Amino acid sequence: MFVLTSYLDAKRQLINAHLDKCLKANPDSGRLIEAMRYSLMAGGKRLRPILCMAGAEAVGGRAEDALPAASALEIIHTYSLIHDDLPAMDDDDLRRGGPTSHVQFDEATAILAGDALLTMAFQILSDAEFIKTDGRHAARWLKVIQRISRAAGCRGMVEGQMRDIAAENNSLSQPELEELHALKTGALIEAAVYSGAVLGDGNLEQIGHLGTYAGCIGLAFQVKDDILNVEGDSALLGKEVGTDERRQKSTYPSIMGLEESKTLARELIDKALQALASFDHRSDPLRAIAKYIIERKR
Amino acid sequence: MFVLTSYLDAKRQLINAHLDKCLKANPDSGRLIEAMRYSLMAGGKRLRPILCMAGAEAVGGRAEDALPAASALEIIHTYSLIHDDLPAMDDDDLRRGGPTSHVQFDEATAILAGDALLTMAFQILSDAEFIKTDGRHAARWLKVIQRISRAAGCRGMVEGQMRDIAAENNSLSQPELEELHALKTGALIEAAVYSGAVLGDGNLEQIGHLGTYAGCIGLAFQVKDDILNVEGDSALLGKEVGTDERRQKSTYPSIMGLEESKTLARELIDKALQALASFDHRSDPLRAIAKYIIERKR
Repeated sequence: MFVLTSYLDAKRQLINAHLDKCLKANPDSGRLIEAMRYSLMAGGKRLRPILCMAGAEAVGGRAEDALPAASALEIIHTYSLIHDDLPAMDDDDLRRGGPTSHVQFDEATAILAGDALLTMAFQILSDAEFIKTDGRHAARWLKVIQRISRAAGCRGMVEGQMRDIAAENNSLSQPELEELHALKTGALIEAAVYSGAVLGDGNLEQIGHLGTYAGCIGLAFQVKDDILNVEGDSALLGKEVGTDERRQKSTYPSIMGLEESKTLARELIDKALQALASFDHRSDPLRAIAKYIIERKR
Repeated sequence: MFVLTSYLDAKRQLINAHLDKCLKANPDSGRLIEAMRYSLMAGGKRLRPILCMAGAEAVGGRAEDALPAASALEIIHTYSLIHDDLPAMDDDDLRRGGPTSHVQFDEATAILAGDALLTMAFQILSDAEFIKTDGRHAARWLKVIQRISRAAGCRGMVEGQMRDIAAENNSLSQPELEELHALKTGALIEAAVYSGAVLGDGNLEQIGHLGTYAGCIGLAFQVKDDILNVEGDSALLGKEVGTDERRQKSTYPSIMGLEESKTLARELIDKALQALASFDHRSDPLRAIAKYIIERKR
């Protein structure tokens, strides 16, 4: 029987070891690398890299084939958290249970650590070690770089953060909120599953179904995040709760109500599971992750 | 006869048109793209993209083969200026004759515009339009992405900026200053010439000579920058002069004297020209650019 916690633990070990290796490939023990390591190794859920590796497995590939992409995705996610926490942005002091980067170090170091992490992600994605010489794999990696950079940039994650800041004192409609989340978190989650599927050598039909899956769980993840900000446990979450309401942010609970938000999250997960109907047991991790996303406490 | 000003004008037109096309490929007319465009189209010298295209030509390739890399390099350079100018970093109000990004927009927008530009550089480098299907070119583009990301990251430009900030109230030795510049500006200039040579299909010997050329002109460029900060014309430069001395920054003039700095710059340019000895007339632009670097007034 498939046990999700063991699966997640094993994959986290894989990803953490690879992230550590990537940091050590840059042997300077100065303040910059220290700040990069501080945020990267602060014990995140590793959702994006795990989705990437599970995507590779679902189409019959190996998790290891997708490992550089998995690491790059977590590194990009981490840089975005560092910059989002800055005084000029969300001005958060606490992240993953510890002081945020600009509190632990200083603002300039936090900005530069974020910049260096974002750059490092593309260094890893183009690392010669991972380029097969037959050319077919080189084109595959370029596709992955293309998709991840689109998801992370001015028509994806960064634009999402712009809208998130603009939304703080404006109430949003549900479609506006959905688009904000699709940009801010959805695009990178979809890129994670896509990259895994491409690197695991999935066919177009598989990649299409996995796209539907990823779109649904990406949104469900955000709806659940909003729910946790209302009724979660700050000790478990490692960050403050109730902050959305204090900042008068538009959230699913504030727009459609708490119970309706829970129903929406469940419906999205059902739709995600339906998208996997034609997949065999190798997509069991993706199925279990979908359920975990709405059941999680942190 | 080769006329540098006509060459630079023609290449600037080419690069500006391509940068404009890259921005328009992201049709959202919102504040983020506006801020990206504001800094990117503020009329820089376009030194890195021109070196990239001239590198392609020097080995017998076409400037157009290197155009996406040329644009990506200018975009990365521009992001670094936006972030360097931030209040938490150099806190500059004036850049290229206009208000800096955080003054013109706001700090959050400036941080995000920088992030989005850096990301866009890798989007352009991996754009499907430029990937030839035979695979040989895909591997070539991956090589370029690898070199540019290394040059821009935590063992290149970002580390250089870390050391630059740390150096503001500490005097540096000449070797320390040289390493700082090699990281902060040298690495990306070398990556520019390298990328052009690779995309122009240069052989290993050519790439080696061009590496020497790029190392010398990169350092000479910085020595000249220091000289201009002492005796340049702020109207021509589009930024304040005398700022290094006021901030007690270690510079070539402060460490070795103004005249000795000019001698060093000339020696570096001579060495750069010697590295091109085995190249034919197609490297005339690189020769002329080397001379221009120490003769420039801005």
